[in-house]
Amino acid sequence: MTTAANDALVLDAAAQDLLFREARTANTFTDEPVSDEQIQAVYDLVKYGPTAFNQQPLRIVLVRSAEGRERLVKHMADGNKPKTASAPLVAILAADNEFHEELPSQLPHFPQAKDMFFSERPVRESSAQLNGALQAAYFIIGVRAAGFAAGPMTGYDADGLNKEFFGDGDHSVLAVVNIGKPAEDAWFPRSPRLAYDEVVTTV
Amino acid sequence: MTTAANDALVLDAAAQDLLFREARTANTFTDEPVSDEQIQAVYDLVKYGPTAFNQQPLRIVLVRSAEGRERLVKHMADGNKPKTASAPLVAILAADNEFHEELPSQLPHFPQAKDMFFSERPVRESSAQLNGALQAAYFIIGVRAAGFAAGPMTGYDADGLNKEFFGDGDHSVLAVVNIGKPAEDAWFPRSPRLAYDEVVTTV
Repeated sequence: MTTAANDALVLDAAAQDLLFREARTANTFTDEPVSDEQIQAVYDLVKYGPTAFNQQPLRIVLVRSAEGRERLVKHMADGNKPKTASAPLVAILAADNEFHEELPSQLPHFPQAKDMFFSERPVRESSAQLNGALQAAYFIIGVRAAGFAAGPMTGYDADGLNKEFFGDGDHSVLAVVNIGKPAEDAWFPRSPRLAYDEVVTTV
Repeated sequence: MTTAANDALVLDAAAQDLLFREARTANTFTDEPVSDEQIQAVYDLVKYGPTAFNQQPLRIVLVRSAEGRERLVKHMADGNKPKTASAPLVAILAADNEFHEELPSQLPHFPQAKDMFFSERPVRESSAQLNGALQAAYFIIGVRAAGFAAGPMTGYDADGLNKEFFGDGDHSVLAVVNIGKPAEDAWFPRSPRLAYDEVVTTV
């Protein structure tokens, strides 16, 4: 445990450790597989995370085939290639910039939000980026809730990935996440974090 | 419980409910206060959430004074004003676009990342937006871990908030979050979520 679990929280200490205190960005993995059932359980938990107007721009591509892995790895930054090639499962997380098409069905008490707020593409892109990132973070937490290490990466050719895996011009990759059980020596020593007083002010 | 807790996850069912399944975006709150100690416990848990290059752009302004509340509420969209005025505590979450100044101390094994990747402001802004949003999501989860409802909002005059609470031109508000114990009838019925097959594909 990196620091003592905090009993000012309601969440139990084991869950604090699992999701935050002992969870780390793994760089190496064992060969234990990650099943579709486990990813579905992750999704069915984290889909409830809050977003603006209940928009759900997040899209997830699970890379399972050797061919898919090859198409992915070639767009990764060199430093990310070995771990992306060897992780038991890799997920490409992207924002769908046309998420507004689903708003009437996903926000039934306010279906007019689609046209009132999201008729312009730049507004949608900005909203999909922010809310897709919130959903990406919920997904990372969910992967940890399933007992796996998540290794999120943003070092890649984003345009290349967008074209390679979506190709419709409507999706923007947010992160690529390696998923699996950490191997020995899976991580660097924990890097520092800013202190509370450096981040939080009160007015 | 909105759906059955999933035993394909390692996280226990009570924690699943607390963080996702029973957690909701509250619109009304009791007058039970939210202490600085509780927010510090939240921060000291969620600060461990992963970001690219261990960057930590998130800044949090806790609005506690009557004067601060007035300065905040005037920039909120009309529909958000009453709950922002009445929540026990409101947090303004913003991204610091000059986060790179802290990279050498926060990423001690790779201090040259600051100059290699973040010398250009537009790159920093884009990175701060994405990683600040990840941290905002971790914070929302942390508020729930402390037993409170979080009510994140993006309906406000962003430029007005940036000038009112930061004024240095270097911060971009990400969300405003009402925090407190939910009152009776604190929420609308749960809106739908996209099904797994609508979000996840496999290659």
